[in-house]
Amino acid sequence: MASITASYPWTTAPLIAGAPMRLISGPSMVHAISSAGGIGFLAAGTDVSTLPENLSTFQSLLSASPIPGAPSDVLPIGVGFIVWGADLTLATKALSELPLPPAAVWLFAPSSSSELNSWASGIRSATKNKSKIWVQVSCIADAIDALKVAQPDVFIIQGADAGGHGRYASAGLISLIPELVDAVRLYCVTNGVGVPGFIAAGGIADERGVNAVLALGADGAALGTRFLAAEEAVIRKGYQDAVLRAVDGGNSTVRTDVYDKLRGTVGWPEGYGGRGVVNLSYADALQGISFEENEKLYKLAEGAGDKGWEEGNARMTTYAGTAVGLVKTVAKAGDIVKELRGEIVVKRI
Amino acid sequence: MASITASYPWTTAPLIAGAPMRLISGPSMVHAISSAGGIGFLAAGTDVSTLPENLSTFQSLLSASPIPGAPSDVLPIGVGFIVWGADLTLATKALSELPLPPAAVWLFAPSSSSELNSWASGIRSATKNKSKIWVQVSCIADAIDALKVAQPDVFIIQGADAGGHGRYASAGLISLIPELVDAVRLYCVTNGVGVPGFIAAGGIADERGVNAVLALGADGAALGTRFLAAEEAVIRKGYQDAVLRAVDGGNSTVRTDVYDKLRGTVGWPEGYGGRGVVNLSYADALQGISFEENEKLYKLAEGAGDKGWEEGNARMTTYAGTAVGLVKTVAKAGDIVKELRGEIVVKRI
Repeated sequence: MASITASYPWTTAPLIAGAPMRLISGPSMVHAISSAGGIGFLAAGTDVSTLPENLSTFQSLLSASPIPGAPSDVLPIGVGFIVWGADLTLATKALSELPLPPAAVWLFAPSSSSELNSWASGIRSATKNKSKIWVQVSCIADAIDALKVAQPDVFIIQGADAGGHGRYASAGLISLIPELVDAVRLYCVTNGVGVPGFIAAGGIADERGVNAVLALGADGAALGTRFLAAEEAVIRKGYQDAVLRAVDGGNSTVRTDVYDKLRGTVGWPEGYGGRGVVNLSYADALQGISFEENEKLYKLAEGAGDKGWEEGNARMTTYAGTAVGLVKTVAKAGDIVKELRGEIVVKRI
Repeated sequence: MASITASYPWTTAPLIAGAPMRLISGPSMVHAISSAGGIGFLAAGTDVSTLPENLSTFQSLLSASPIPGAPSDVLPIGVGFIVWGADLTLATKALSELPLPPAAVWLFAPSSSSELNSWASGIRSATKNKSKIWVQVSCIADAIDALKVAQPDVFIIQGADAGGHGRYASAGLISLIPELVDAVRLYCVTNGVGVPGFIAAGGIADERGVNAVLALGADGAALGTRFLAAEEAVIRKGYQDAVLRAVDGGNSTVRTDVYDKLRGTVGWPEGYGGRGVVNLSYADALQGISFEENEKLYKLAEGAGDKGWEEGNARMTTYAGTAVGLVKTVAKAGDIVKELRGEIVVKRI
């Protein structure tokens, strides 16, 4: 297979992707990530209605500050959809009305194989096959299923350490990447189809993580948690401070449905939970406080602004992966991309 | 810091350790691992009574087949203890009566800091400081605590993907190694003490995993699951076949206390569970079958020998990590060590 960066000619190897974090990955951040030779993903999430405006804002940023090497037939970014919750008709309409489609579309968490199939073919049709289809999976079974119904151009291999939503039953990248890459290659060779690219996500926060996933067989890395502390992230200061403060990521985060319930973001397919920093909302739920009481306290915290994330009193959701303990400074998204590629050396003990 | 292999002069970099798997890691396997330039750990586990005989058997093997480069003042292997369950008095007695102490002692799962302190000082005293103290930890808090009470020579960094026992609250190696290494280095520099070595465990099964943990900042790798399929492992064929059969390690294994309860191996400190292959014992427990009924079925399976692990009907415990899906062949333990170092090239798709 040709190097994955050849398909995204403005990018530099190893490919660094900014994950499409719902509400957080906006036009400025994706422009900064792609300008630094990565690929930023706008988050459509479950609500496609904001996508046209976000794409239009990105186009303005791109006109003001073009990205060298960007192809003439696609935008040098991607768009991410949470498949079970987003409206395919609205999504394809938004994409087909664009002067240029995004270079990639990232599909996550379909409620069924046939839904994934509809999305992959719908997007390909709406973008005249110009948008590459990236499919996020966290186990071998889902990857083989996706090969059959969606022929992904790229797999995002999501490990158990990932922040935000993912499957409860999952492995870390250390074993997941090699087993998945071997299984996908075997399927492709056996069936005479091309081998997709592999981008790893979940627990990566610095150059060491990137080098590790390359050693495991991935072609690049996708990051969410690290970009929560990007200057361009659309994020409350309280949330960002909670990310900077958290240490010991395996102890201080947990995958749960407690935060989904409190926020009312329900409807995820069975088996999915969101990893976030443990705070009073989770501790109280664990102690057996009633949902109504916990929700009341959550809404009070919500009304308190950044104080809802205050140390010791935090109740507001802080989705983050186990790499949260490695995130200690706010930086420009473009500098984060360069640090991840080893072009900016970070001083450590 | 000098290379970790300098402390174990018969070894070759990167250092490969055979984890002390209770009942499974016997004299033949540790001799084979150390003979190939790794370091094998005999498993004393919670029952020190078998240790003298196992050490004596190892000495016979060593006399018959010496290990080049082995020092004259220690045995070229280690011994592992499950601290909460083993008897320190018996352990120090066994070690002090040896003509040569083991090169390393691996301490896991103390029930308290003071217990870890007693073990580290007791072993050092019994072996006249000849046995290096390896301490297994799975979070930053435990590592800092161990630095204070046990001054480990080596940390075994245990990620969430590890088979057998470990903490429920834990991160995969992808984020755990860099965060732990940074935190330990900072502590050591701040307190003017030497930086220990770092050996990573949990989810590693082949050369790719070894290279990944080196990129993340470890000095070497410890493996359990891969050595379940070593010719020299003391293991039932049914168990070994179940390991070879399992795929999709994040889906097919789970960390739980179900198997502990069925086997009667209780007494683990709070927060620990054992990762094993999902089988009927676990599925039935999840479905809400009574413990008595599940135990009855377990004992029937136990009486059925290797059939207790039979595909589709398995009830017997198959402790294994998420890397189980990468273990597809039985091999000599020495060849496994060489494969892990990249000296034997494994053909893949």
